[in-house]
Amino acid sequence: MVASEFVSELRNRYGIEFHDLSILDEAFTHSSYVNEHQELGLKDNERLEFLGDAVLELTVSDYLYRQYPDLPEGKLTRMRAAIVQTRSFSAFSKEAHFDQYIRLGKGEENAGARMRKTLLEDLFEAFNGALYLDQGRQAVIDFAAQVIFPKIAAGQFDANMDHKTALQEFLQKDGEVKIEYHLLSESGPAHDRRFQVDVSAEDRVLGSGYGKNKKAAEQAAASDALEKLQGKL
Amino acid sequence: MVASEFVSELRNRYGIEFHDLSILDEAFTHSSYVNEHQELGLKDNERLEFLGDAVLELTVSDYLYRQYPDLPEGKLTRMRAAIVQTRSFSAFSKEAHFDQYIRLGKGEENAGARMRKTLLEDLFEAFNGALYLDQGRQAVIDFAAQVIFPKIAAGQFDANMDHKTALQEFLQKDGEVKIEYHLLSESGPAHDRRFQVDVSAEDRVLGSGYGKNKKAAEQAAASDALEKLQGKL
Repeated sequence: MVASEFVSELRNRYGIEFHDLSILDEAFTHSSYVNEHQELGLKDNERLEFLGDAVLELTVSDYLYRQYPDLPEGKLTRMRAAIVQTRSFSAFSKEAHFDQYIRLGKGEENAGARMRKTLLEDLFEAFNGALYLDQGRQAVIDFAAQVIFPKIAAGQFDANMDHKTALQEFLQKDGEVKIEYHLLSESGPAHDRRFQVDVSAEDRVLGSGYGKNKKAAEQAAASDALEKLQGKL
Repeated sequence: MVASEFVSELRNRYGIEFHDLSILDEAFTHSSYVNEHQELGLKDNERLEFLGDAVLELTVSDYLYRQYPDLPEGKLTRMRAAIVQTRSFSAFSKEAHFDQYIRLGKGEENAGARMRKTLLEDLFEAFNGALYLDQGRQAVIDFAAQVIFPKIAAGQFDANMDHKTALQEFLQKDGEVKIEYHLLSESGPAHDRRFQVDVSAEDRVLGSGYGKNKKAAEQAAASDALEKLQGKL
C-alpha cells in the first residue's frame, strides 16, 4: 500500500485525492517488487505506464498547440520531444517525490534502481495513467498545469533550449556517439565577426550554422542538424 | 473550401458535422497548395497533424488498455505500434475517401502525392486533430469506433498478426534490409515434429523460435526478434 504520508502530500501539494487507492498502488509497484512477492498477486505499473505515456503526449501536445498558435509543426514537434523525454519526466518524478514511494524489489533497490532515470520516467507516466483512469483527462491537465506547463512557459524547453545538448541526446539515445564541431570560416570586420561551424558525428556532417561567436555558431549548427535529422524520421 | 459533397459524406456516413468548416478546410490543405497560392494566405494541415497524431495515440491506447485487461504492456505497445503507423492510417484515410478531397499543389499532384501513403497518414491525423478541436475528444473516439476499433476487434492487428510482415516493416522503415530465416534444427517423432528457426538481418541474428512446422517457427522467430528490438527502443 502506498504510504499515507504520500497520500497526504498529493492532497496538500497538488490537490489530488484518488477515489480508488488500489490504482495508485499499482502505479507505484515496480515489476521487481511483484516478482519478489508473487504470493501477493500484485500488478506492476507497466500497463499504467503504457496508458500514461499517451495521456501525457496529448496533454503536452494540446498545450503547445494552443499556447503557440504561430509555431510551425516542426518546432512544435521539436518542443514536444524536448518535454516528453526521459530527462524531463524523471525530473518531474523527483520533484513530486515519486522516487521516495515506488515499491522496488530488493535486487533492484540494491542496484540503485530508485535513482534510475528510465524508472522515474516510467513512474511519472504510470502515475498519470492512474490519475487519468481514476479521474479523467482534466485531472492530468490540472496536474500538468502545476508540474509541466509552468516550465514550458518559463522557456525551459523552447527555442532557447540548448541545441547542442538536444542533439547529443538525440544521437546518443542508442549508445555513445562522438560529436564534433569544426570551425569552417571566420569573416567580417572585428566588431562584426561571423563564424561558420559544422557539426559531424562519426565523420558524417549533419549540419552547419553561422553565429557572431563560435558558441552561437555551434548552437546554430546543432539546431540545423536536429532539424535535418528529425525531418527524416 | 472543402467540397460540399464531402461535407455531406461526413454527415451521412459518420454522423460528423463540423461547427467550424474553416478548420476542416485547414485539415485538407496540403503545404504544396499553400505554397502555390500564397495570395490566399492559407494555413496548411501540419499543425493539425501534430495535434491529431497525439489524439489518435491516446484514443487507440485507451481502447487497447480497456479492451485487453490481461495483456501485458509489451503486447499492448506492439499492438499500438501495428495500428498507429503509416500503413494503417493511410488505409483508413482512403477508406474514408479523404484522398479525394485534399487540396494539393500542381507539382505534388503531378508527382502522385495524392496516393502517397505518408501524405494520407498525415491527412488522417490532421482530420482527427481538426475533429478534436472542433468537437472535443469524444468525437474522435466516436469516429475511431467506426473506422479503427472494429478492425482491432476483428483481430486485424492482434497477436495473430503476421509477425514476419511486422518485422519486415520495422526493419525496413529506414531502407531496404535483407531478412533471412534459417532452419536450425528439426526434431521429435513424425507426428510431433519440432522446428527451430532463427532470423537474421544483415548477418546479425535477431531472434529465434520454435514451431510445429517451419512457417510457425519462422513466425515465432520474427515475434522474438520484434520483442527484442522493441525492448531496445
